[in-house]
Parts: sequence; structure tokens; C-alpha cells
Amino acid sequence: MSDLTSPWEMLSELIAAENSDEVIKFLDTLSPPETARTISRLTGEEQLRLLSLLSPEDAADVIEDIPETQAADLVEDMPSEQAAAIMGELTSDHLVDMLGEMDEDASRAILAKMDREDAEEARMFLEYAPDCAGGLMISEFLAYKLDDTIQDVLDDLQANRSKYVDYHVQYFYVVDRDKKLAGVLRMHDLLFPDRETALGQVMLSSPLSVSDKASLKALQEFFEEHHLFGVPVVDDGRRLVGVVLPSAIEEAVNKRKTKTFLRLSGIIGGEEFRTMPLLSRSGRRLSWLSMNIVLNIIAASVIALYQDTLAAAITLAVFLPMVSDMSGCSGNQAVAVSMRELSLGLVRPGELLWVLLKEARVGIINGLVLGLLLGGVAFTWKGNPWLGFVVGGALAANTLVSVLLGGVLPLVLKRLKLDPALVSSPLLTTVTDMCGFFFVLSFAAAVMPKLGGI
Amino acid sequence: MSDLTSPWEMLSELIAAENSDEVIKFLDTLSPPETARTISRLTGEEQLRLLSLLSPEDAADVIEDIPETQAADLVEDMPSEQAAAIMGELTSDHLVDMLGEMDEDASRAILAKMDREDAEEARMFLEYAPDCAGGLMISEFLAYKLDDTIQDVLDDLQANRSKYVDYHVQYFYVVDRDKKLAGVLRMHDLLFPDRETALGQVMLSSPLSVSDKASLKALQEFFEEHHLFGVPVVDDGRRLVGVVLPSAIEEAVNKRKTKTFLRLSGIIGGEEFRTMPLLSRSGRRLSWLSMNIVLNIIAASVIALYQDTLAAAITLAVFLPMVSDMSGCSGNQAVAVSMRELSLGLVRPGELLWVLLKEARVGIINGLVLGLLLGGVAFTWKGNPWLGFVVGGALAANTLVSVLLGGVLPLVLKRLKLDPALVSSPLLTTVTDMCGFFFVLSFAAAVMPKLGGI
Repeated sequence: MSDLTSPWEMLSELIAAENSDEVIKFLDTLSPPETARTISRLTGEEQLRLLSLLSPEDAADVIEDIPETQAADLVEDMPSEQAAAIMGELTSDHLVDMLGEMDEDASRAILAKMDREDAEEARMFLEYAPDCAGGLMISEFLAYKLDDTIQDVLDDLQANRSKYVDYHVQYFYVVDRDKKLAGVLRMHDLLFPDRETALGQVMLSSPLSVSDKASLKALQEFFEEHHLFGVPVVDDGRRLVGVVLPSAIEEAVNKRKTKTFLRLSGIIGGEEFRTMPLLSRSGRRLSWLSMNIVLNIIAASVIALYQDTLAAAITLAVFLPMVSDMSGCSGNQAVAVSMRELSLGLVRPGELLWVLLKEARVGIINGLVLGLLLGGVAFTWKGNPWLGFVVGGALAANTLVSVLLGGVLPLVLKRLKLDPALVSSPLLTTVTDMCGFFFVLSFAAAVMPKLGGI
Repeated sequence: MSDLTSPWEMLSELIAAENSDEVIKFLDTLSPPETARTISRLTGEEQLRLLSLLSPEDAADVIEDIPETQAADLVEDMPSEQAAAIMGELTSDHLVDMLGEMDEDASRAILAKMDREDAEEARMFLEYAPDCAGGLMISEFLAYKLDDTIQDVLDDLQANRSKYVDYHVQYFYVVDRDKKLAGVLRMHDLLFPDRETALGQVMLSSPLSVSDKASLKALQEFFEEHHLFGVPVVDDGRRLVGVVLPSAIEEAVNKRKTKTFLRLSGIIGGEEFRTMPLLSRSGRRLSWLSMNIVLNIIAASVIALYQDTLAAAITLAVFLPMVSDMSGCSGNQAVAVSMRELSLGLVRPGELLWVLLKEARVGIINGLVLGLLLGGVAFTWKGNPWLGFVVGGALAANTLVSVLLGGVLPLVLKRLKLDPALVSSPLLTTVTDMCGFFFVLSFAAAVMPKLGGI
């Protein structure tokens, strides 16, 4: 899998030799993920030197290949003049995403050195939340005036051919004198009418549009309902400010899923890459772990309360972690189903009762099956049926508790405007641990003479 | 949050009254997620009756609003003639996804009743893996012959205006007599040349294309490198067979993420919705849980081996689950980072050593910090420094073990062609539980006289 000389060692040598032609040639041989991997393995200094060896266009190409968080960190460390030149080469949505990842001082310094018009546009985009229509739209669209003729459009297309290559030209938008959205034309609407016709006469008036404040969810629904290749975005005054493409929506949903996945696994405060500095990786992981250690102490204190019971029937210690682990697993399944149903709109945050009823039935069946299984193992092992009842009964009871809790927790957290991905799992684990320990030890205390010092 | 009469109760009444006009009117008032929620709450019978009340077009609209798994289940239960009529109204990619979700008998029966041409096309699409270019492409594109003139294209566009509304007409494709892809034209390339010019003379020849077997990863890279609105897909003979849109790629990545998230949480064998039959929900959850119970028994057996040690220092029972839980959390963080880096191509499955080195440093720091914390708590509680050493030392050692294991596990599983999302977490938990129990109890056994019956 590993070459004799790794690509980053080769690149590192070319950078040291300041041989920019060779650097470009070498980068051209790499696919985007290879570029990302290679560059991430360079030292911070080498990365900076690499970008200053390249033209702004080439540097922007490199920047587009590496993950946004890393790219933003890198550009932040550059002289703002040089950073501005590179950022000016990015498409508007990419530029705004990058600026959004930086700290405010850095992004302000870069904007100050950028082309005035681009900077003003970027500042406008930056005012939007990243997940609303304003934050997801692109500014590369074509808009004409009501009294422009078809010939005017054709002339413009001809004159700006190269500039429009990256544009979204599935549709042409028509605006009135106040820049308000007046209509839309599909490309082939231009082909047939007389070329001197004004756009106002051939356009489709009062076209579909979305507000610049429309949420990601609303946009998803929009594209589910209307199979369009893009939708114009208007501000409060119905002025046309951008266009949202369906791929931008899917990308934003994707980003959200990644964030959810990482948070569920305890990676908080943004993405972690192993090329980041050791102390920041370690510190961010610790911040989540230390919260968990406190919750764990709370849960385990139940065992401390029942220490005498446990000492009298030490075998129970084998089953304590099993009961709490297994219930945690059952609860996490219910959490996952609830989070999925919430995100699809199949359940509303208020429908606690419906979820409880649905989970209760699964909890009872699965609790009985798992309880019989583990109770059977306990009975077989020690030959004491009461041990079987204690262990099996505790697992059955705790399975029910944890699927009920797991099912409603994401709904409740959503209502409280907390992030289910971040809070569900630690909270669930703590409660199911506590309850699991309590069930095993209190059931055992109740039948202690029958357990007889196992 | 809940209305006095829920939408599904209202819909249920309209269905019972067989009032199809009112049903359509009512469905029109619902957004797509509301439609999904409302329909999912109906009984299976009511759902079937609803679809038979609607025209195939309206039924197809409903089908598009509900999650694919549910839609496929529903259509499977319909008479195949009626199902075929509805499926014929779906776009090609949606149709193929649905057929792919059904069991083979059902999909074959439906295809047999469909329009012959549509069915043949669907069969061709079905032969592709769902995540390669062939499985992701659409058949709604425009292709013309080399000697067609621009006027021919314009005539065709004019004649088929309504049919082409949903088509991807950002580009026109040009094919030779053997249907091999010969060139591409952008819409505005048609605007300027003489209308009698043959397409072969104005097209861009040898355009970018992808193989029908190109992987999702390759397609992602393609669109990262080329900012296009679609790419033509060719088979082994370079014949044009479809077009892949960037939004289809993002959607497929999205689906994959959902699957990963669900599997990580123990929802296996496809999605679960709470409206599915109780026994299938319960059974699928149990199948994963029973594997876990076995792993749990294996892990807990370590405690059984050290029962005497534990009886001699019963306080340790409080710390056993804490040490194993905390290490599990640390390990899961490392798993998440590895899975993320693998999916971005920032690490290769072979780079075990690099990951081990990177994780070791985090593991040592975090192990020390967490060990000091928990060891301090143990010492303070019982006033016995040796208890602090045992507990803190065990947590430190086990944190290191679990981040190392968590870091490399996804890479190893990937090399073994196993699914990291499915296998990482149960395997990691088992090993970290075992090691955690072992560290606490063996350290304690080593210094037992110093612990002195705490």
C-alpha cells in the first residue's frame, strides 16, 4: 500500500526546491482525494510555502480539494493580501463557506483586501445562516431586464461565453427596474420567438421562488415537490438575490449528517483530522469525555449504595455491566429510529404518546426475550433459579425503560431546542446504567436469602 | 401539537367513503413530509385502497413522497397490473430504486405488465449495482445524430416541449450511427450558427464521460474536479446509455450516510419505521442485540475469573463499569475519526502504523488526564491511595488500548471487506470491556494487601 517514497515526501522536496512548475506538474497527477491526503501530511509551514509558490488560480484549485475546515485554517495563516487573491478565485458559495469557518478577524482582513464588488457580495452572503436559502445560494446566475430583447440576451451570451461556463444557465431570470423578480425563461424559450421580442412578453411571469430565509427543510420539501434544476431566491422586497441548486441542498443535508454522526460518537466542536495539532485534538475529545465521566460517577453511585447486597452475592458483579450495556444498546436503537423519523417528518416532536406506545410493545417483547436469555445463562451457570429471576427480570425491566426513554429523548430534546445527536446518548447511558444497577441490586436485595451467598 | 382530528383520521374517512375527488383535494393540502406521515399512519389496507382510488399519476405523486422502503412494501402488495400503471409514471431512477427494494418475484411481475420499452430499460438499469454510474444515471436526456441539423433539434424541442419539461437539457449529446457518444453541445451553442449546420460540425468532440461501471467514489471525484451539471455515461462499447447529475451523487452519498448511522446504532437489515409490523421491528432489533449479548457474556467472564479479588475489595465493583464505559467512549471517538478520514480519502486502509502513532499520543494524554481524574475521585472517596492507583492506572491503560484499537479497527475491517459501521462498535466494546475489567482486577490483585478490604 505504501510507496517507497510517499507523495508528500516528493512534494515536500519540490517545495523545498521552490520549483513551482514541477510542483504544479506533480499536483496534476493526483486525484482530488490524493491531493487532500498529500497536502494534509505536509507540515503547516510547507503548506503555506506551497500556496505561495502557486498562482492564485492554482492555489484555489488546491484549496477546493482539501476539507473546508483544513482549508480555512490554512488560509487564515497566510498574509491577508495573498489569501484575498486566492479566495477571489473561488465560487461564491465556496468562498462564503470558507469565510464562515474562519475567525472573524481573519475573514474581515481578507475581505478588506478583496475586489470591492466581490467583498460586498460576500459580506451580504455571510449575513445569512449557512443552512438557509441565503447561505446556500450562488450568485452565478443570469438575470435580464423586462425590456431587454431576446437578441440582447443572445449578444450577452455570445460576448461572455467564457465567463458563463460555470453559470447555472438552465434558466434565465427577468427582473423589473427595482430588481424584483418578474419572470423566468427556459433556454429554449429563446429559440422560437422573434429576436426583437422583449423578454417581458415571452417570459413565464410570477415564477416559483423561495425566500432568502427559507430553511434547509423547506428547501428540501420544495425540490421534492418541484423537480426543478434550480430556484430563484428573493429577499423581503422580492428582489432577486441568488439561485439555489438542488445539489447544494443535498450537500448541506450531507454536511448535517456528518455533523450528527461525529457528535453521536463524541467528536464535538467541528471535525477532527489526525493532521491537526495534538493538543487541540486531545483537548476537544477530553471536553466531551470529562462530561461523561461525571455522568458515569453519578450512575455508578447506585452500586455504592448497594455495596452490602453486592458483597453478599458477588456473582451479581458479573451481570451488572451486562445489564447496563445491553439496555444501552436497546435504547440506542430507539434513539436512531426516532432521529430518523424526525428528520423525515414521519413523527412530530409533540407525539410522545405515540412513540411511547410503539416502543412499549417492542420493549416488552425484546425485554422478555433478552431477559429469558440472560436469566437462563445465569441460572445454568450457578444452578440458582433466583439468580436467573433477578438478572433476567432486571434486564427485561431495564430494556423497557431504555427503549421508552431512547424513543422519546430525541423528541423532547428537539422541543427543548437541544441537539439530539449531542445529548441523547450520554443522557440515555447514564439513566439506563443507573436503572440497570438499581434493578439488579434491588431485586437481589428483595430475595437475598434465596440467593444464599452465590 | 395534535389536532382534534388528525389528518390520517380525516383521510381514513374519505377513503372509507371512496370519495376520490375529496381524497385528491385533501392530499393537495399536505406538504410532502405531511403526506408521508399521514399515509404511514393508515393501516396497510387503507393505503392499498387509497392508491386504487387515485389515478396512476396521482398515485405516483403519493409514492414519491413516502420513504422508498415503505413505498416498495406498499406497491408489492398491489395487483401487479395496477402497480405497473403507477410505476410507469415514475422517473427512471425512482422506478429502478423502487424495483431494487422489492423482492425479485414482485418486481418481475410488475415489469411483465409494464410498457415494453420502459420495462426493457428498467431491466437494463436493474443490472447495475445501485451505487455505480449505471445505477445512478437517468434516461431522460436528449441525444441527436451527427448529421442532424440545428433546425432538426429546434423542431424536436418545439414538438416535444411538454415531454422535455423534466429533462436534463443543460447539454445535448450527439451520437454516431452505432449510438457511440461523439460529442456534446451546450444549449447556447445552438443559438448562433446557421440553422442548417450539422451537429457534427459545431459540437465539442470527445467530451468528458464516465463508464457505466464507475463507482460512487469515482463519480464524486469527477464532479469535484469538473464543475459540470451532468456527465454522459457510456457502456463498454462507448455507447451513450444515460446521464448522471451531481444531485444524484449527493443523494447516493446521503443514503450511504444514513445507512452508516443506522448500522452504527444497531438498526440493521434496512430502515425501521414505527409503522412497520411489530414483529419485524422487534425481530430485526433482536438479531443485533443477541449477537451483542454473546459478546457481553464473553467480556463479563473476565469478572467471573477474578471473583475472589472483587469479593476482597468490593468497592472495585463501583469502578468496573466506569472504566469500561469511559474507554468505550474514547474508542468510539477514534472510530469516528477513522471512518471520516477513510471516507474522505485522507487515510488509506493500509496506513495502520500512521494511525497508531497519531492515536497513541492522544491516548497517552487523555488516558493520563482521565486516569488522574477518576483515580483522584477513588482516592478521595475511600482515602486509600492504592485504590486511586488501581482505578486511575486501569483507566489510563485502557484508554490507550481503546483509542489504538478504535483508530485501526475501521481500516482493518475495510481491508477485510467488512462494514466498519456494523462491526466496529460491538467489537470495540467487547475488547475494551474485557481489557478494562482485566486491568482493574489484575492491578487490584497485585496490590491486594494494600487495598485491605475496602
